[in-house]
Amino acid sequence: MTAQRSDESAHFAAPAPVTVLGLGPMGRALASAFLRAGHPTTVWNRSPAKAEALADLGAAHAATPAAAAEAAGLVVVCVLDYDAAEQILAPAADALRGRTLLNLTADTPERARAMAEWAAARGIDYLDGAVMSPAGTVGGPSAVYLYSGPGDLYDRHRPELAALGGTATHLGADHGRAATYDLALLDLFWSAMSGMAHAFALARAEGVAASELAPFAVGISELMEDIIPATAADVDAGRAPGDDAAIASAAASMAHIADAAEARGIDSALMRAAQAAARRAVEDGRGQAGWAHMTEVLAAEPAGVG
Amino acid sequence: MTAQRSDESAHFAAPAPVTVLGLGPMGRALASAFLRAGHPTTVWNRSPAKAEALADLGAAHAATPAAAAEAAGLVVVCVLDYDAAEQILAPAADALRGRTLLNLTADTPERARAMAEWAAARGIDYLDGAVMSPAGTVGGPSAVYLYSGPGDLYDRHRPELAALGGTATHLGADHGRAATYDLALLDLFWSAMSGMAHAFALARAEGVAASELAPFAVGISELMEDIIPATAADVDAGRAPGDDAAIASAAASMAHIADAAEARGIDSALMRAAQAAARRAVEDGRGQAGWAHMTEVLAAEPAGVG
Repeated sequence: MTAQRSDESAHFAAPAPVTVLGLGPMGRALASAFLRAGHPTTVWNRSPAKAEALADLGAAHAATPAAAAEAAGLVVVCVLDYDAAEQILAPAADALRGRTLLNLTADTPERARAMAEWAAARGIDYLDGAVMSPAGTVGGPSAVYLYSGPGDLYDRHRPELAALGGTATHLGADHGRAATYDLALLDLFWSAMSGMAHAFALARAEGVAASELAPFAVGISELMEDIIPATAADVDAGRAPGDDAAIASAAASMAHIADAAEARGIDSALMRAAQAAARRAVEDGRGQAGWAHMTEVLAAEPAGVG
Repeated sequence: MTAQRSDESAHFAAPAPVTVLGLGPMGRALASAFLRAGHPTTVWNRSPAKAEALADLGAAHAATPAAAAEAAGLVVVCVLDYDAAEQILAPAADALRGRTLLNLTADTPERARAMAEWAAARGIDYLDGAVMSPAGTVGGPSAVYLYSGPGDLYDRHRPELAALGGTATHLGADHGRAATYDLALLDLFWSAMSGMAHAFALARAEGVAASELAPFAVGISELMEDIIPATAADVDAGRAPGDDAAIASAAASMAHIADAAEARGIDSALMRAAQAAARRAVEDGRGQAGWAHMTEVLAAEPAGVG
């Protein structure tokens, strides 16, 4: 795994042409970043209005995905999901032959690997990737990119990818690896985002504004920055010291939260699901284990499921 | 609401006596911090072994909660929940009369207010509070304390509370306010902790170690530090711009995560609960709204419940 800041990849060749297929918020941000870095950029989008807006910024607007693909050695696709990506790419397969397809669409590792096979069978070089920061970060220092696929292919396209700014990490040759990281990180992200929305609802029911709670909620996120690497080390070592936060105490805390939510007519399903998993650990006699043990509990299918 | 660093509360009077009831990890940390700051400290715990360990550090070990209460003007109780606190305090009510009871036990706002009424009826001054950082932070600069109850009572005890270090915030006279913040912040915390354990399980199923994922997971927490205040401002203003992350796109992402978990035999209940709430917003025609709208969705009881 190699990570580098984009500014380490400075190069002096003329910026190579790039194509961007799909102009949702992320696709538009990607195309704009390529344009700003001086790459001749061709775009295509299902609804042409968004492509025309980018044409005003200097992009070439292709009429079809195949025509767009023929304009560059690196073709980036970033759409809602792989179903959409496959619909766009299938009729462009001949045009993509001999070029590099970089798929920044988010989906599962299985689908990333299947698309790599599809590409290989058609003579298309394939990189998979994921953008782990909001569209607004693209081109700037706080953008975060993950890539997977052949290392030499990744290295060949570093000059174009440098235009996207931020920090890029090549995770290895397995095409599914970027999607694995993407899924796991979005898992944490949407759990935290759901918890945040719920915390604001609970506070408001007691007359506390979201902005009053926010500085302390930021403190919770700061706390997570210490807890995450410490818990990761415990998970990898197969240990779960319960000194600071035993699962039984967490389960009691989650019960209070869910009870309080229900007493105020607030949806408690997420906290009940979290509590049920913790309770399984307690019922298995692991209530005094630390939170790291929950990774084992969640990985073991609950009785009666599956 | 007033927040201050403990070092602003420096004073030159002799440290006042303090009592700590309950010597779990947090109670022990509190008693140790009082002792280190030079406060004559009396402790009581249901099982005496823990009190004896603190006696070795200089604490007086009282035989009953009432005897412990009689030793100080400020009596701190920190136990598992209010049921436990009430059992300890009921027989000590006479001894507590004319003293200040500070309850750092976590529970609901209702129970904090009920205990304030119980105390008022018995001539006991009452402050409620919550420790928002792990026991290991107590006495140090990163500890975070929330207090609620009469402002003059809080001011009177600032000298003793300064011994606990960190940042203290008085949230107002409503005794339930610290518990409200505590519940809402733990709501976010346990959602994120559950998401983290789940992310580690999902990554491991694809051969990615928790420590490999951890640096990127820390990046997600850093992202939350920007998202939280921005979303809070939207929630308070009753707006939910969907430019960067529309609920429909989040729901699709959550479906991928839950599908991938289930395909690997990993519990998906939490992500399914989060997805179901997002889907309710989509079904209500608010799929293009931003995530701030989820606070409204969660606050409205789902059909068929309650």
